[in-house]
Amino acid sequence: MGWAILPALCVLWLLTGAAFVGVKLGILGLGTVGTGTVQLLLDRTERHPLLQEIEILRVGVKSVEKPRDVQLPSGTLSSDLTSIVTDPKIDIVVELIGGLEPARSLILQAIDCGKHVVTANKAVISRFGDEILNAANKAGVYVMLEAAVGGGIPVVQPLKQSLSVNRIQAVTGIVNGTTNYILTKMQTQGSSFDDVLSDAQRLGYAEADPTADVDGWDAADKISILAAIAFGGRIKRDEVYCEGIRQVSQTDITYAEKLGFTIKLLAIAKREESSPLAVKVHPTLVPIDHPLASVSGVYNAVLVEGEPLGQVMFSGPGAGAGATSSAVSSDILNLVARIKSSPFNEKANGKNAKPQITCLDPLLASAHQDYCQIAPMSELVTRFYARFLTKDQSGVIGKLGTSFGNHGVSLESVVQTGFQQDLAEIVVVTHDVKEGNFEQALKEIRTLEAVDSIPSLLRVL
Amino acid sequence: MGWAILPALCVLWLLTGAAFVGVKLGILGLGTVGTGTVQLLLDRTERHPLLQEIEILRVGVKSVEKPRDVQLPSGTLSSDLTSIVTDPKIDIVVELIGGLEPARSLILQAIDCGKHVVTANKAVISRFGDEILNAANKAGVYVMLEAAVGGGIPVVQPLKQSLSVNRIQAVTGIVNGTTNYILTKMQTQGSSFDDVLSDAQRLGYAEADPTADVDGWDAADKISILAAIAFGGRIKRDEVYCEGIRQVSQTDITYAEKLGFTIKLLAIAKREESSPLAVKVHPTLVPIDHPLASVSGVYNAVLVEGEPLGQVMFSGPGAGAGATSSAVSSDILNLVARIKSSPFNEKANGKNAKPQITCLDPLLASAHQDYCQIAPMSELVTRFYARFLTKDQSGVIGKLGTSFGNHGVSLESVVQTGFQQDLAEIVVVTHDVKEGNFEQALKEIRTLEAVDSIPSLLRVL
Repeated sequence: MGWAILPALCVLWLLTGAAFVGVKLGILGLGTVGTGTVQLLLDRTERHPLLQEIEILRVGVKSVEKPRDVQLPSGTLSSDLTSIVTDPKIDIVVELIGGLEPARSLILQAIDCGKHVVTANKAVISRFGDEILNAANKAGVYVMLEAAVGGGIPVVQPLKQSLSVNRIQAVTGIVNGTTNYILTKMQTQGSSFDDVLSDAQRLGYAEADPTADVDGWDAADKISILAAIAFGGRIKRDEVYCEGIRQVSQTDITYAEKLGFTIKLLAIAKREESSPLAVKVHPTLVPIDHPLASVSGVYNAVLVEGEPLGQVMFSGPGAGAGATSSAVSSDILNLVARIKSSPFNEKANGKNAKPQITCLDPLLASAHQDYCQIAPMSELVTRFYARFLTKDQSGVIGKLGTSFGNHGVSLESVVQTGFQQDLAEIVVVTHDVKEGNFEQALKEIRTLEAVDSIPSLLRVL
Repeated sequence: MGWAILPALCVLWLLTGAAFVGVKLGILGLGTVGTGTVQLLLDRTERHPLLQEIEILRVGVKSVEKPRDVQLPSGTLSSDLTSIVTDPKIDIVVELIGGLEPARSLILQAIDCGKHVVTANKAVISRFGDEILNAANKAGVYVMLEAAVGGGIPVVQPLKQSLSVNRIQAVTGIVNGTTNYILTKMQTQGSSFDDVLSDAQRLGYAEADPTADVDGWDAADKISILAAIAFGGRIKRDEVYCEGIRQVSQTDITYAEKLGFTIKLLAIAKREESSPLAVKVHPTLVPIDHPLASVSGVYNAVLVEGEPLGQVMFSGPGAGAGATSSAVSSDILNLVARIKSSPFNEKANGKNAKPQITCLDPLLASAHQDYCQIAPMSELVTRFYARFLTKDQSGVIGKLGTSFGNHGVSLESVVQTGFQQDLAEIVVVTHDVKEGNFEQALKEIRTLEAVDSIPSLLRVL
């Protein structure tokens, strides 16, 4: 079969690695993650020997003059990012500037120039993944994005490579560290959302503008990416239902705890049989003995359910320079390994000969081109937790029950938990119901004279 | 850079896949995992499309006549396993017969014939990994072993590919489902080791001869494999310290719980600074808020600590046909993807042209050739839990404390927990001590007239 000679060539080629021109990186961005990545790549002792094949050729920054925490050869830094992504010497562009533009344009330019791309940018991938991955497939390059979801936790690659023989049934994640930190502190300290948010901002766990985190947008970006990989189809980001944690109150956390639940912001992608996909982000009551219930603080976790596998969970630090630069560097190392294991191209005997990837690995490249059909929320089935404030009259629970019954909503428990001022507080937990039916029942309940308000509506896992 | 043409060739080649001869498997063994794997590979709807490129050409079994749960074309089954591993038509040999021989010889023969190997056999890899991986490197083929550790949990591949940029500090696992099931049941039901073992045997969670599980050998096999990957060096299996769970009593589980611990059989590989590696298996008191403490029943988990990553944990079903065949099939799929992404070889224009891997990916192949230096147990530092039965005399605790002090063993707590018959029971938890010093102290304590016996000695995480 000719194996005997080919490996010998490989060995020869690997052994003569000294003559081999290293793989050249152009890194865009030298903020927290950029600096962490450069530090990791330069500090090679006791790490994978393949790191020695990497050369950081150019780093794109806003200001070349600004003092930096890493030492790079003079001339490495440049504020001309376009010149980096088009530099013919560069093999891999590492995009760490974040945001939509100019990240999107720079990534597309890099791909057009035949460069592989590593990115940590969930916003740009979840919104322009279609354009970017089509361009990459056309150009025959890889776009690697392990760092875009779950920080340092390997989840993108395991989903692509290790779990893809399974029929994936659900991917359920705690994928935003800021909101998990806030919910954990609200539960353990009994503090309000606003107080914990201020603390989190002071400690650097939340941004000055916390919108993307607390309103669930970041989690929605991430579950779009995970769903696309897990279910083998692209996801339209604006079809993802997204509800944040602003309305989660201390009261609900306390009641949830009494009922045996903890409240988490879950990002869920789920398929039942061959029905359309559910992709959604919302605060959720999670049973305390569920694997995701014990994931606390800034930690992230992703639970994958598949057939015949069963459930596996990946958990770890979801953010931070160390964790994210681990993921970014692992993507870089994977590309370097692929480049190193590719045979000589036609120019092999020339002076600047370097191996190139000649055909993309279908498990690492983005194979899927079709969009997944996303189920409308009204069609989804879930359990609900609802808290009502009602007038303190007899028969109110009966009226609530009748309204729910009118719309086919079956109740698991109805408890009058106490009073707030002169209003009675009633907590309802339903059995599985269609969201649309529940919504109709609420519409009717809102018209009841005895019902003052519905301060909380949460879903139950 | 020539990218523009090469991808076009790839696309052409992938599109003409109908003419492409599929990747041919020879599977050895059609027991639980073999049957599960065949079922998964044949039932392709809604799984990765690449599965369609796989053809199960031959399956080696003990008895061709025995009725089977899977339907295969006649002539597929054969009891001549050697003829399968040497069959020139076969690309990948999947070894699922387990045990040392003939598994070892068949794997080596397959490699000699230029075939890639997928195996779920931790015993053969932990003992003959050196010989097998050397042969594979020489032949330029891959040996894939995801299923050998952690059942369906992706851990081998993430360690090789996603985490290898890190300086790994420790890999700590609950890697044997049988012992974790037994310890969990002992804790939740308050039953004795012997009773739970009988139940587990009845339910199929423990073998008729449970030695390999309950004495920790299986866990030692697995941590040898994980340590080799994580620390980039081979491990001599007989240098791994191995202590099982037979001596763990209900009494100790109860005391551990009172002290805030749960008892788990941990498999640990750990390096402090650049000192030799600690590789060991023993029952361990794990703090209840530790991520591994909540892994119960037949579930497995592997916690990896690295720099700059921090801690990540992988958990899921550690055994069973579904989980294990997921791991086996994922290895097969990875090989198929590599084969498909390799360019045509020289025979490309011939009738039987098929792409071949021409140079091994250094992240997937076994690069390391040197043995790790393993630290002797006496040099390792740990905390201990010890339970003493002593005569009911005043001053006994003082005598114990003095003996420990004589050997530099510092104590965290000493509690007289009660009486057993006419003997006093004393539970001691130490601070970090060198194993050798603790052993010396015990030697002295055993000579004390007041000390009757030391029923339990356990380590604390």
